[in-house]
Amino acid sequence: MDLRCLFEPKSVAVIGASHDPKKLGHVIFKNFIEGGFKGDVYPINPNIDKILNRKCYPSVLDVPGSIDHAVIAVPAPAVAKVLTECGEKGVKGAVVITSGFAEVGNIKGEKELVEIAKKYDIALIGPNCLGLIDTKAKVDSVFLPMYKLQRPKKGDIAFIAQSGAVGSCVIDLAAEMGVGISKFVSYGNASVVNECDLLEYLRDDPNTRVIAAYFEMVKDGKRFLRIAKDVAQNKPVIAIKAGKTAGGMKAAASHTAAMAGSADVYSAVFRQTRIIEVESLTDLFDYSKIFLQPAPKGRRVGIITNGGGVGVLTTDWAERHGLQLANFSDETKKKAREKFPPHVNIGNPLDLAGDADKERYEYALELLMDDDNVDSIITIILFQTVSLDASVNDVIIAASQKRKKPIIAISIGGEYTKKNKVILESAGVPTYTSPYVATGALSKLTWYARCTKEGVCIPFI
Amino acid sequence: MDLRCLFEPKSVAVIGASHDPKKLGHVIFKNFIEGGFKGDVYPINPNIDKILNRKCYPSVLDVPGSIDHAVIAVPAPAVAKVLTECGEKGVKGAVVITSGFAEVGNIKGEKELVEIAKKYDIALIGPNCLGLIDTKAKVDSVFLPMYKLQRPKKGDIAFIAQSGAVGSCVIDLAAEMGVGISKFVSYGNASVVNECDLLEYLRDDPNTRVIAAYFEMVKDGKRFLRIAKDVAQNKPVIAIKAGKTAGGMKAAASHTAAMAGSADVYSAVFRQTRIIEVESLTDLFDYSKIFLQPAPKGRRVGIITNGGGVGVLTTDWAERHGLQLANFSDETKKKAREKFPPHVNIGNPLDLAGDADKERYEYALELLMDDDNVDSIITIILFQTVSLDASVNDVIIAASQKRKKPIIAISIGGEYTKKNKVILESAGVPTYTSPYVATGALSKLTWYARCTKEGVCIPFI
Repeated sequence: MDLRCLFEPKSVAVIGASHDPKKLGHVIFKNFIEGGFKGDVYPINPNIDKILNRKCYPSVLDVPGSIDHAVIAVPAPAVAKVLTECGEKGVKGAVVITSGFAEVGNIKGEKELVEIAKKYDIALIGPNCLGLIDTKAKVDSVFLPMYKLQRPKKGDIAFIAQSGAVGSCVIDLAAEMGVGISKFVSYGNASVVNECDLLEYLRDDPNTRVIAAYFEMVKDGKRFLRIAKDVAQNKPVIAIKAGKTAGGMKAAASHTAAMAGSADVYSAVFRQTRIIEVESLTDLFDYSKIFLQPAPKGRRVGIITNGGGVGVLTTDWAERHGLQLANFSDETKKKAREKFPPHVNIGNPLDLAGDADKERYEYALELLMDDDNVDSIITIILFQTVSLDASVNDVIIAASQKRKKPIIAISIGGEYTKKNKVILESAGVPTYTSPYVATGALSKLTWYARCTKEGVCIPFI
Repeated sequence: MDLRCLFEPKSVAVIGASHDPKKLGHVIFKNFIEGGFKGDVYPINPNIDKILNRKCYPSVLDVPGSIDHAVIAVPAPAVAKVLTECGEKGVKGAVVITSGFAEVGNIKGEKELVEIAKKYDIALIGPNCLGLIDTKAKVDSVFLPMYKLQRPKKGDIAFIAQSGAVGSCVIDLAAEMGVGISKFVSYGNASVVNECDLLEYLRDDPNTRVIAAYFEMVKDGKRFLRIAKDVAQNKPVIAIKAGKTAGGMKAAASHTAAMAGSADVYSAVFRQTRIIEVESLTDLFDYSKIFLQPAPKGRRVGIITNGGGVGVLTTDWAERHGLQLANFSDETKKKAREKFPPHVNIGNPLDLAGDADKERYEYALELLMDDDNVDSIITIILFQTVSLDASVNDVIIAASQKRKKPIIAISIGGEYTKKNKVILESAGVPTYTSPYVATGALSKLTWYARCTKEGVCIPFI
């Protein structure tokens, strides 16, 4: 199945476009207009002449030019008819937003859609989905208004989610923190295009370096195993599996008609395929972004801090997550002792003390970047102190942009801190609120780096 | 030891007050002036006449009136002298911000301070600490400027932290989310006043309903065991212990001179005393706030959602954290079926669907509040949807304020979502980003409620 018409269409039809700002068809059409999509966009609605000053057509068959991609947001009983018209028009990609199919027991209705899609060779996403985003082509069929759901900037992480709600949460988090995405796909009931097709497409997508995924179920286990193995050897795949308990499976079944399947089986498959499994939505986001860092050579981590307590907690979690506290080289220790005032603690963590300024951070980063005993660097910055301001971000970003070793940041606090975190994150320094999550993510990056480089997995944890 | 002079002083001296905005003594003095402290505040500095238009005294001995509480922020070698003067003046409470004592090996210097404090019966906090806050008395000796470290509003949670950095992070988070605190104490090297004294004081503090604590070490294990048991039976104590690994212990030793001790011993002590142990700083914050909810009668939880996927993840984690998904009563199911449109899924989770409005949430909450099969309620709100706006908060807050059952919220997203979360949180609805953390906290609340009510602990997990 060729999915290009979905992600790189030259022309799009929004079937069910509407005047009413509360209708999904309105929001989607508006997003295309305001989101900067370069191709043609045709609103389709037999009852309306114009929407947002654009001529509206009764059916796709009435549109003069060709259409690559149709977004369908009409009531469930009308979907089969408009999808057939899409087929006749030669539309090769369709996103069916409409719900009311297999997930509510309407198996017949869903089967009908699948048959139409097969007959006309349509790559169909959905039904019962939130839409998709391609930040390069500026395709955006997500039916949530931009003021409520921020759109992330262009970036290297693709995110596929069976659940629209989950999907919207994660991209909203990404946008807020300044993390970019390449593509987002909410694929709902997965009636035609499913997780396997998407993984295969993303494997070869030059704009995607990391794949994040939320699964409720996998339909064809054997195919998934084969494809996932292949994809995860090429690009890191970070995944969360929902519906792991009896209650969760029941809930998943009534949500996307998914038979969730045994948690153990999934975890085993993930391990076998080298998919990195996470347990929470925020982890899905927090673990994905670290995989844009250069691969560490080993598990010896250097910690820089201006707050002792957070250093202690980070050390605890680094060790519990299977990382090792690096023994700094004699040269590093000597240089640090010469440069820093006596109350700076030249250990690991390297505690620059509460009066640390930008210069101390700069020198500390330089030392650890040059120290062959250090494979990765965790920089803890408490922005609350009197001696630091936003300019400390410059030295961290400069070190990070050398792309010699993974550099991540931990910073905990309120509004002032948050602003600085967004600066770091937007510049490609993965920034965390929790030492637990930061070291967990770094540990997985280290594990994955060993997997791919040496061809064998030696999990540290 | 009487700690009242620390938290409810009528007069305060800031020793080491300064003109220089980068000096701690300046920030602290300014915080007292701008923070609304009602009593007298005297700046002390032999080299200056006036600071911020207030007469400055060479020594506390020169101040005409009496002084209850002294904040000491002079260089380490000068601390003993000014502390002795405090003793001679009759000051009964002192917070020594200055570092450079036992934590850097200056055992002799610290011993000297302890002897002076004992001689003059001074309740001494520190040295090497961040200061303290009492939101009722408006005492604020925290040396971080308010624009960098927001101050939380008045509330019911007291927070004590051996590490200043950790302390500042947690109160900053609290302020940002609108969670109130009663007191904050950073107690540093714990040379005189230690965690036991503070716990005892907070047990009897009428303004404190929940105690959150960050420990690096406990000096007198036997006394701690006795006091903690007593306190935790009266008020919930949520604690995190840092320095659990070999590396972490080493880091703690060079930070607050703490001998961190075995992780297992601490965990056993926490279990015995019914202290609720958490593993991360964000959990310390997230778990503490749920303890202001009414005690649940059992572990049967009802989940309301407008996003299926987040409902599934929450169900998974509720079950994995030892909670049970409630079986709604026949009456609840009947009423829900009559009221809600057919695509609303009348299960648990009660999936109100992506087009749910305020009215659906209101009715759903009413049903679960009245259903005797439901002990606690998790409300998932995805604010991104077209049919919801900030007014849905009103119905959740109204239900919560009946204080009949614990009600918590889960909401994940960017800026728009965040604003709404702060509204909920400020009105006393504990609001979470992560289903994992939300259900973990609810599970601990349920466990603690059983502990205290039935006198026996039956951990669900």
